Amino acid sequence: MDAENQQQNATSAATADATAEASAGRAPVSRRAVIGWAGAGVALGAAGVGSVAAATRQDDDTPAAPAATADIPFFGDHQSGIATPVQDRLHFAAFDVSSTATRDSLVRMLKEWTKAAAAMTGGREVGSGAASGLPEAPPDDTGEALGLPASRLTLTIGFGPSLFEKDGTDRFGLKARRPEALIDLPKFKGDNLDPQRSGGDLCIQACADDPQVAVHAIRNLARIGMGTVNIRWSQLGFGKTSSTTPDAQTPRNMMGFKDGTHNIAGTDTAKLAEHVWAAPGEGPDWMTGGSYLVARRIRMHIETWDRTSLKEQEDVFGRTKGEGAAYGRTKEHDAPDLKAMPADAHVRLAHPESNDGLMILRRGFSFTDGTDGLGRLDAGLFFLAYQRDTRKAFVPLQQRLAASDKLNEYIQHVGSAHFACPAGVRKPGEWWGQALFG
Amino acid sequence: MDAENQQQNATSAATADATAEASAGRAPVSRRAVIGWAGAGVALGAAGVGSVAAATRQDDDTPAAPAATADIPFFGDHQSGIATPVQDRLHFAAFDVSSTATRDSLVRMLKEWTKAAAAMTGGREVGSGAASGLPEAPPDDTGEALGLPASRLTLTIGFGPSLFEKDGTDRFGLKARRPEALIDLPKFKGDNLDPQRSGGDLCIQACADDPQVAVHAIRNLARIGMGTVNIRWSQLGFGKTSSTTPDAQTPRNMMGFKDGTHNIAGTDTAKLAEHVWAAPGEGPDWMTGGSYLVARRIRMHIETWDRTSLKEQEDVFGRTKGEGAAYGRTKEHDAPDLKAMPADAHVRLAHPESNDGLMILRRGFSFTDGTDGLGRLDAGLFFLAYQRDTRKAFVPLQQRLAASDKLNEYIQHVGSAHFACPAGVRKPGEWWGQALFG
Repeated sequence: MDAENQQQNATSAATADATAEASAGRAPVSRRAVIGWAGAGVALGAAGVGSVAAATRQDDDTPAAPAATADIPFFGDHQSGIATPVQDRLHFAAFDVSSTATRDSLVRMLKEWTKAAAAMTGGREVGSGAASGLPEAPPDDTGEALGLPASRLTLTIGFGPSLFEKDGTDRFGLKARRPEALIDLPKFKGDNLDPQRSGGDLCIQACADDPQVAVHAIRNLARIGMGTVNIRWSQLGFGKTSSTTPDAQTPRNMMGFKDGTHNIAGTDTAKLAEHVWAAPGEGPDWMTGGSYLVARRIRMHIETWDRTSLKEQEDVFGRTKGEGAAYGRTKEHDAPDLKAMPADAHVRLAHPESNDGLMILRRGFSFTDGTDGLGRLDAGLFFLAYQRDTRKAFVPLQQRLAASDKLNEYIQHVGSAHFACPAGVRKPGEWWGQALFG
Repeated sequence: MDAENQQQNATSAATADATAEASAGRAPVSRRAVIGWAGAGVALGAAGVGSVAAATRQDDDTPAAPAATADIPFFGDHQSGIATPVQDRLHFAAFDVSSTATRDSLVRMLKEWTKAAAAMTGGREVGSGAASGLPEAPPDDTGEALGLPASRLTLTIGFGPSLFEKDGTDRFGLKARRPEALIDLPKFKGDNLDPQRSGGDLCIQACADDPQVAVHAIRNLARIGMGTVNIRWSQLGFGKTSSTTPDAQTPRNMMGFKDGTHNIAGTDTAKLAEHVWAAPGEGPDWMTGGSYLVARRIRMHIETWDRTSLKEQEDVFGRTKGEGAAYGRTKEHDAPDLKAMPADAHVRLAHPESNDGLMILRRGFSFTDGTDGLGRLDAGLFFLAYQRDTRKAFVPLQQRLAASDKLNEYIQHVGSAHFACPAGVRKPGEWWGQALFG
């Protein structure tokens, strides 16, 4: 299902979801209703927020269509959070399954996760909420998002190689269902990976325009998973660095350059089919309509970069810093003349023309996690890329970049993970991973 | 100067600032103008953003006055960022002065910082910008906020006890000017302070509605200070937990409870004078109109809290979780009946009625810094409180809370710092710390 269809399906999916909740014996609770945002208030609180959140990122003369609703539909042929217009903030968590968990407990958790995810992405509380239920029992929802709109929250799940086989053990009877494309990533030149920030049996990508909503979602899923999974590592992203809406203002990364100028548009169904969605027959059935996610924590040597001349900075990217125009061009979106750039310029090396038309869908976020022991900013890019087959996309691209990219003087890859993100949950009652475990 | 006056002075201050920049031989560069947001675009990009950023946090029937401008005036009798309506995001940095720095180099840096702060809070780039100047030289601005509005950025400076005397040494000839109120904070019961997250010779509090703008500001000040100061520690806050605009929706902390219901309003000049601003004759002249800032990194035992019953959670605070009403009342803003709460309830112990009318201005933010080695969320409250005299405000209050607060089972103070924040910079040409060093 493309982005346009997702928009059209929003209402029906929400209705179906509400019906499912109701048939489970609970009235669905809108977080907004709790604080009196019903009726006209919803229009201001939901549509108003979305449209102006987009305005902060756009030129005046471009429409803010994708952000016009504060709820992104959870149900659909593809998972949301991939082709969805990139939200402003991120909380990403990688989980390991506990040593005591079984296949059954894992399935039970995935069913509960799905129900909670459908509620939270719809702006509703988990279960009976944060302030109702038995006073003697802990509330179902932790409550810190109570009163906040859905803020375009999306929750996207992925399964890591170690879920299928870990230390030679097939813990959950899934080994035969592991996609060939879900490889253990090779070591790339220059990698300096921290195992504490790499890998994971499962992942959840939470994106929202309000970080409190994204953090709330990860926390409540972690809480539901208590005893079955533990958070292995997590990453907060404070600003998106890639856009999947080409007519929006392109965000800037921590090096001050526009990032993602030439990205796959979330509405470009042809390019999505060609580069992002796994196609029938290419791998196991459960991955058809899914996508492979590579996550890389890329630390930037900020202090060194900041002492580098403007010319060197522009040579590194092959674009001007202010406008973001390719060398020899005047506007950001002018088609680049790659030969006008230095041979080792990042944009030249990464461009589809230099890679037989190869494209990945980038969805990265800037991070800063304070300062390291030497007083240097621990900051950079949390790179997220979705693709149809990692072996034919991120791997050859990164091998090329790792070997030659002038940018390598200023960055280091310090975390890495790879996940198979299955197709979407099509309707209430289905659950994350059903086709894999079912 | 109260908040209302600050609003009125916005235009004149901005004009004066522009004049000062121009007379320094540079045309002031608006970040928005660079990407073509001039003219009508400014109205949308500035006023539009501010007013709806506020709408996400408020009930529909309350005006969004304080957020109606995207620029908060930098110049004024008091520093902005104290009585200013609390922005959505925080980047806080504590700096130590380098061992090789002198009083002169420190003064030079403070002058440069002031100029950069006036530019950035006005939505302009530092110096000649990120994409102009000599190609052979590093750009004056790092560029990642290029194209973003000022987002109500405020930058607030404070001076720590160690600036005045460190290990018995008066490094900068300031010892005699140390305010008596700028005490070394006593150890409180239950403190488990990490020296790597405590103290600091100086601090900068950067608040903005866009975290990229706040991070950009700290980074550019750190860069200007290179060789003179180093970042000792820093803290990112992703969501405000206190409001200083009483008619706005009260934000919730990571425990899911409304926080700051009974805070000092930024427009209440009488209460600000009584509880927040240092008065003439109470300390050194350079602190008149300033305020004392206590910063505490308060880690919450999230996983324990989340397993606690609703009744226990409400008993801890003495308020209901959903509405935030005091025990025995029905609405959040109903005056509490403290006797209806458990004797060790947080709100009862912290309430002015229990403390001879004592009040502090709270300006805290939720944080989450990933997970610790045991897979637990490293999350909680970065508590910021401004007061007229710490000895008569935070110290007795925290002694009381540390001794008896039921909340202590679920939190731990892991970082602590104390700063004297001087009066405001009144006009262009003056600089941060001028009255202290001058």
